[in-house]
Amino acid sequence: MQIVVLAGGVGGARFLRGVLAAAPGADVTVVVNTGDDVTMHGLRICPDLDTVMYTLGNGIDEERGWGRRGESWTVKNELAAYGAEPTWFGLGDRDLATHLVRTRMLDAGYPLSEVTAALSTRWQPGVRLLPMSDQRVETHVVVADPETGRPQAIHFQEWWVRHRASLEASAFVQVGVDRARPAPGVVEALTGADAVLLAPSNPVVSIGTVLGVPGIREALRGTAGRVVGVSPIVGGEVVRGMADRCLPVVGVEVSAEGVGRHYGARSDGGLLDAWLVQTGDGASVPGVDVRPVPLLMSSPETTEALARAALDAAVEGPRPPHPSHAQGGPRDGAGGR
Amino acid sequence: MQIVVLAGGVGGARFLRGVLAAAPGADVTVVVNTGDDVTMHGLRICPDLDTVMYTLGNGIDEERGWGRRGESWTVKNELAAYGAEPTWFGLGDRDLATHLVRTRMLDAGYPLSEVTAALSTRWQPGVRLLPMSDQRVETHVVVADPETGRPQAIHFQEWWVRHRASLEASAFVQVGVDRARPAPGVVEALTGADAVLLAPSNPVVSIGTVLGVPGIREALRGTAGRVVGVSPIVGGEVVRGMADRCLPVVGVEVSAEGVGRHYGARSDGGLLDAWLVQTGDGASVPGVDVRPVPLLMSSPETTEALARAALDAAVEGPRPPHPSHAQGGPRDGAGGR
Repeated sequence: MQIVVLAGGVGGARFLRGVLAAAPGADVTVVVNTGDDVTMHGLRICPDLDTVMYTLGNGIDEERGWGRRGESWTVKNELAAYGAEPTWFGLGDRDLATHLVRTRMLDAGYPLSEVTAALSTRWQPGVRLLPMSDQRVETHVVVADPETGRPQAIHFQEWWVRHRASLEASAFVQVGVDRARPAPGVVEALTGADAVLLAPSNPVVSIGTVLGVPGIREALRGTAGRVVGVSPIVGGEVVRGMADRCLPVVGVEVSAEGVGRHYGARSDGGLLDAWLVQTGDGASVPGVDVRPVPLLMSSPETTEALARAALDAAVEGPRPPHPSHAQGGPRDGAGGR
Repeated sequence: MQIVVLAGGVGGARFLRGVLAAAPGADVTVVVNTGDDVTMHGLRICPDLDTVMYTLGNGIDEERGWGRRGESWTVKNELAAYGAEPTWFGLGDRDLATHLVRTRMLDAGYPLSEVTAALSTRWQPGVRLLPMSDQRVETHVVVADPETGRPQAIHFQEWWVRHRASLEASAFVQVGVDRARPAPGVVEALTGADAVLLAPSNPVVSIGTVLGVPGIREALRGTAGRVVGVSPIVGGEVVRGMADRCLPVVGVEVSAEGVGRHYGARSDGGLLDAWLVQTGDGASVPGVDVRPVPLLMSSPETTEALARAALDAAVEGPRPPHPSHAQGGPRDGAGGR
């Protein structure tokens, strides 16, 4: 079974653990958001790729959910002693080695997808880990300058980590996305997938950024498999992260229904065949197979159960029409779901 | 009093402590060898500059003589876990922050002399710390390939650290030295110095490399002050380091006399006005005021006493002829020393 998962960082990584547990023999490709990537102290940092890699490679700090287990902060403290900015980013010593190797390979001309494959030879994540693109795409956030009130764009990490998303955002800008192409293998994986899962990651700055790469949305809509999304919103609140600070910026209600409708039905120009929401959360998403299930990934068991529910939704429902048969035929019943 | 010291790493740094103790009010400029500099893991590393900076800034590991006190090796071990070469270089976590800041500034276009000044604002070494040059000069060592026997050039650090100078060297090559210029301030400091001291550093790959930068030897020979060298050889053996592996390569005997003659008398086209050798070491260097003194820097007191002896030799002897008066005059007695 060929499974493709679109993912951001912490939530996506946990969900992927469930997928690997629920489908041990499956061929899993993960397409990861790289819009959070940032260069700090001359080092290229890919927070979401690393979170997925460390999590699946058993190197993650389980409590924090990001960074390396047993981490130390010597270099960070020394950089601060030099007055080297920024000082607010959590750059651990163990983590830093990853960034050094990555930066060196990128400087040598290797594309990020090959760098990621090289780093993965150490971590053996058990999935094919792909950046959404080899081109640089950086999410910037338009905020009001605290002094002048004028709009200014800051890097997503500055907004997210330094300001804890407390600055009012008026827009997210994916710098470079217009010139980006899907990384090698992304379109092929999506096209040939039996199931495409949207992890319960941030719909705006994680999944939304992946979908913003020209060609990915189209490949996803053309997949022969079913597309199943998992709501990151439970009971009207985010489970983790700060999606509640992002969704209103793009005019989306902070609810399972709001996000489901934002993704939209595949039969109606959107993405979803099925949408998993928390048991008890009402959600009406026209044209989409909405399934209430327990969403909280509070243990390996609940996480695996959630992934199994997502995979069930991918194989149990009616197969979508293949694009080449979109003019009709006996299986062209997607519009009725 | 204006003092200029030419220095390499560990020995030079210790000697400088003595100079600062012996001449607390003096204006001290240090011209440091940068031929040992190397780029590893994308980081620009300046071992001698850092050893002097950390030593005078009270951050040095006193036992090792190089690197930071209380050092840890997390990043190095992580790099090794990725299989990232080289693994033989002692890259500590604390030290690494220095290289990160330096590399970032160099990449931003700042010359090494300005980077060194910026780093020194943290360490407050109490001297003006100057690289010999802002241009890259890298000492390579010509050795026989272990398999083919053919000559090949390896970076000095590979020869020194990885092979512990055990490979037979046939030559040292200062790559880039022809295009190098003295860093800003070097020539002016030498010209205006009351005393120029050659630290007991490696005469070939430390002091020799500094002197190889076009313009430095000339400025030193033209200084109004006296030039005093301190022998790194005691009783026919090196006090530290591996100068005994370097001197024969350039045809110099491993003795205080050999090195003294290698530097040569200033009155005879060489560099020295005075030459400090270990008490008991016989050394005949024609035209040079050879002074036997205790050379071992085994305590702060002995180190200060050595520096005082060097400064005494700089102020007590006859003043050399100023270049502009070289045609004669009452003080033109250098030839008779």
